[in-house]
Amino acid sequence: MCGLGRLKEAHISTPEERWADGGTDTGRTLSFSDAVIAIAITLLALNLEVPQVPESSAAAELPSALLELWPNLFSFVLSFWIIGVYWLAHHRLFQQVNAYDRWMLLINLLFLMWIVLMPFSSALIAEYEHQQLPVIIYAVHNILTSLTLTWLWRHAIKDSRLVKANLDPRLVRHSNFRSFIVPSVFLLSIGISFISVDVARLSWLLVGFLTGPTLQKYM
Amino acid sequence: MCGLGRLKEAHISTPEERWADGGTDTGRTLSFSDAVIAIAITLLALNLEVPQVPESSAAAELPSALLELWPNLFSFVLSFWIIGVYWLAHHRLFQQVNAYDRWMLLINLLFLMWIVLMPFSSALIAEYEHQQLPVIIYAVHNILTSLTLTWLWRHAIKDSRLVKANLDPRLVRHSNFRSFIVPSVFLLSIGISFISVDVARLSWLLVGFLTGPTLQKYM
Amino acid sequence: MCGLGRLKEAHISTPEERWADGGTDTGRTLSFSDAVIAIAITLLALNLEVPQVPESSAAAELPSALLELWPNLFSFVLSFWIIGVYWLAHHRLFQQVNAYDRWMLLINLLFLMWIVLMPFSSALIAEYEHQQLPVIIYAVHNILTSLTLTWLWRHAIKDSRLVKANLDPRLVRHSNFRSFIVPSVFLLSIGISFISVDVARLSWLLVGFLTGPTLQKYM
Amino acid sequence: MCGLGRLKEAHISTPEERWADGGTDTGRTLSFSDAVIAIAITLLALNLEVPQVPESSAAAELPSALLELWPNLFSFVLSFWIIGVYWLAHHRLFQQVNAYDRWMLLINLLFLMWIVLMPFSSALIAEYEHQQLPVIIYAVHNILTSLTLTWLWRHAIKDSRLVKANLDPRLVRHSNFRSFIVPSVFLLSIGISFISVDVARLSWLLVGFLTGPTLQKYM
Repeated sequence: MCGLGRLKEAHISTPEERWADGGTDTGRTLSFSDAVIAIAITLLALNLEVPQVPESSAAAELPSALLELWPNLFSFVLSFWIIGVYWLAHHRLFQQVNAYDRWMLLINLLFLMWIVLMPFSSALIAEYEHQQLPVIIYAVHNILTSLTLTWLWRHAIKDSRLVKANLDPRLVRHSNFRSFIVPSVFLLSIGISFISVDVARLSWLLVGFLTGPTLQKYM
Repeated sequence: MCGLGRLKEAHISTPEERWADGGTDTGRTLSFSDAVIAIAITLLALNLEVPQVPESSAAAELPSALLELWPNLFSFVLSFWIIGVYWLAHHRLFQQVNAYDRWMLLINLLFLMWIVLMPFSSALIAEYEHQQLPVIIYAVHNILTSLTLTWLWRHAIKDSRLVKANLDPRLVRHSNFRSFIVPSVFLLSIGISFISVDVARLSWLLVGFLTGPTLQKYM
Repeated sequence: MCGLGRLKEAHISTPEERWADGGTDTGRTLSFSDAVIAIAITLLALNLEVPQVPESSAAAELPSALLELWPNLFSFVLSFWIIGVYWLAHHRLFQQVNAYDRWMLLINLLFLMWIVLMPFSSALIAEYEHQQLPVIIYAVHNILTSLTLTWLWRHAIKDSRLVKANLDPRLVRHSNFRSFIVPSVFLLSIGISFISVDVARLSWLLVGFLTGPTLQKYM
Repeated sequence: MCGLGRLKEAHISTPEERWADGGTDTGRTLSFSDAVIAIAITLLALNLEVPQVPESSAAAELPSALLELWPNLFSFVLSFWIIGVYWLAHHRLFQQVNAYDRWMLLINLLFLMWIVLMPFSSALIAEYEHQQLPVIIYAVHNILTSLTLTWLWRHAIKDSRLVKANLDPRLVRHSNFRSFIVPSVFLLSIGISFISVDVARLSWLLVGFLTGPTLQKYM
């Protein structure tokens, strides 16, 4: 945003790099990503529809009609926090990034495509709460999403081209370790789903526990 | 956004803090929050559906069909201004904040989850305008939202770690006082709903009066 | 966004002003406003639904089914450009503004409420293309929107408190003149609607003509 | 965003230019554009609806019901990447732009109008996968979108008024060449659609190939 900073950045990137969509100002990519993630996380709530009971018998029927929304509420809260965890990871990743190239923009778009599809998979597990297929689709979807984020990170740190020069090697090790938490939980849940669909769904709550603030202190 | 500022910030935060999602650049958190609040406030209008009457008898039936939208319009305007008041409070809060940690990001996400659910609760009170249950759900929903914002503020000022050093103690007292207005009004409305659902709904308009610009001058 | 700029700003605003939601960094207000306007302008397209004809007879029936979308397309394009004109006016207005107070935030929220309601009024005129009532609602809606923007401008330039010090008086006169174009066209269309609903709807296209780039040169 | 930068900018633009909506701070135009594109790209997923089969026979019927979503998934992925390519082109274009005038804002709004209509055309080709008319509409829609972006670029570089002074002539030639890729592919697909609708739809995948990162290296 600052005139001086921009001029200096322009000097660093060679013309070739700019033709290939490279640059050092990640601002627009981040604001576009934030907007896409924000819309997807908000559209999750569209799966919660107000139940329709006649106004005359609403006093009697509304409580149970609202309770029937329980699977929708479960999948809303679950998907909200999973997208929230992805946003936190994206946020953390780009704190280390200070340049980008065309591949980075494309991998980021692929990550955003998985995010945009999340309300669909979320609606699927809400609609068919005792079926195995939606559980597998939801798990595979999340494995692909988190692997795409790992790909983004690996691409950024390769040859240290797109990250800050003084990147702490412990931070890299820590990030590499972290990036396995989400895909591992979802891979495990696919195995569990062959025994019990309900336990497989509950196992996803491990994502919240393993990426939570308390545990992070000791890792 | 400015190169120099960022470098200095990087110096202030220790590596440990950064692993734990800490930092001083709240820009992305704010733009993500703004986008989520903006989408939720806009989706409120989806509860206002154009009434369907035959084109042939529209001249006669359309006026009354539009008047029947009154409860939807009431809940739209009410929820629009309540989310507006939350945005103002969030805006005011982050004017004092100059750093964040992982807990702050998570409490902020919890606040955004309540905001995202607002169109649902708003549709519920529009659909069942004479029922007590939707009134209680709407009130509890708003109590949770405002308490989450209070939690965010308390976490930020604890040990003065995430706020500006020279925070005016009068401003802190004032903020503490203000943070009780919204939950108090909604708690009161739950009590009133046992006597009259209509009066309980009207009592929510107190939020607009108590947080309005005229009154604020004297507080 | 710049550390130094922010510190200086903090000095200018007195504690009293900050309690009353005042400040000089309009960044968040603008990004929130942009997001709300962007969502409303995009939701306009939801009124364009893909027509449903059987796949077997689609080759014969689809062309006429698509032509029947004409009133929806008219109201989409019209409302898209009207919201576009409001965004341009909001953008132009805030180029002169360098501070805000609580009233300004509230008037801006009122302006955004009218914007958020625009897809509803737009769907109404698309659904009932030969009725007078939707035309009057649409016109009144736009008069209120543009008057709210005028109120925002008047509040900002009052006592020169919220605008740049060296504001060109010719620019003020020009802005005052411009702010009457949109309400005048819509007021006129209400009168015309008593004679012909179709002519009243077409008269709205004057907004595009009168605020267009060619004419502006000579004003 | 920085006080000093803004003051200097204000000096450069003459009062006449500012009346005509000119200026050098493209920040708000970009954030508004990003928000509109982000919403349109996310709304594409609304065309993917969860199939409704009875819970009792879901185990048997859900797999085939999900497979029937294939044309919707094809048009979602296709349109997501096409909008993604437009965003990349818009991003690349504005990296060279350092000023704007009223015409630029209006051409940009026209570009955003095509983007906002994309979910409609995308739903149309998903709904009627064997019809020629939706294919022609989708192709014409994309030709108009990319030509509007070319118009934006031509307007910006005309007399070098709105771009950086030291613009590399090779970059201009390269951009001019690139801007013909998308309209050429879609024009070609219209011709193909008279022979085979399916081949015409598949020919659109050329956009991904021709604008991909591998090929760009050699151009």
